[in-house]
Amino acid sequence: MEIDVTIKLKQGVADPEGENTKKALNLLGFRTVHDVKMMKTFRLVIESHDEEKARIEVEEMCRKLLANPVIHDYEISVVRAGDR
Amino acid sequence: MEIDVTIKLKQGVADPEGENTKKALNLLGFRTVHDVKMMKTFRLVIESHDEEKARIEVEEMCRKLLANPVIHDYEISVVRAGDR
Repeated sequence: MEIDVTIKLKQGVADPEGENTKKALNLLGFRTVHDVKMMKTFRLVIESHDEEKARIEVEEMCRKLLANPVIHDYEISVVRAGDR
Repeated sequence: MEIDVTIKLKQGVADPEGENTKKALNLLGFRTVHDVKMMKTFRLVIESHDEEKARIEVEEMCRKLLANPVIHDYEISVVRAGDR
């Protein structure tokens, strides 16, 4: 089973990578770009046939390793065959 | 309009960040994790009402700045209100 964990910065946390990407795009002439936010996704391949159980396990992975609760929000989504 | 650009490594390109995340998860006791791949997403806020035109512009941003064609594949998707 493939599960995507998307890690984004909480509202209000500075996002220098996004900010600089926006500046660079504007300098390249893309003046319609008003904001850029960065996100990171872990695509996990997990041996499990029980979606509910896998989700609970991935929640635990987020708390223990993947996300920093001070600055990050995370989203867990199961990858369906068509999403890949 | 919000557009997500997802940058992933091409098949066969080494992904040390994903590899090390996998190792760390296994060491933490999550032994069902068989593989981890990293992806990066730029969420762009663009002033545009023409989806087709915006997509073409974002394609150009990918070629000029956001992706490295030697190692990256990219996907462009318009963010609908429900996806946020």
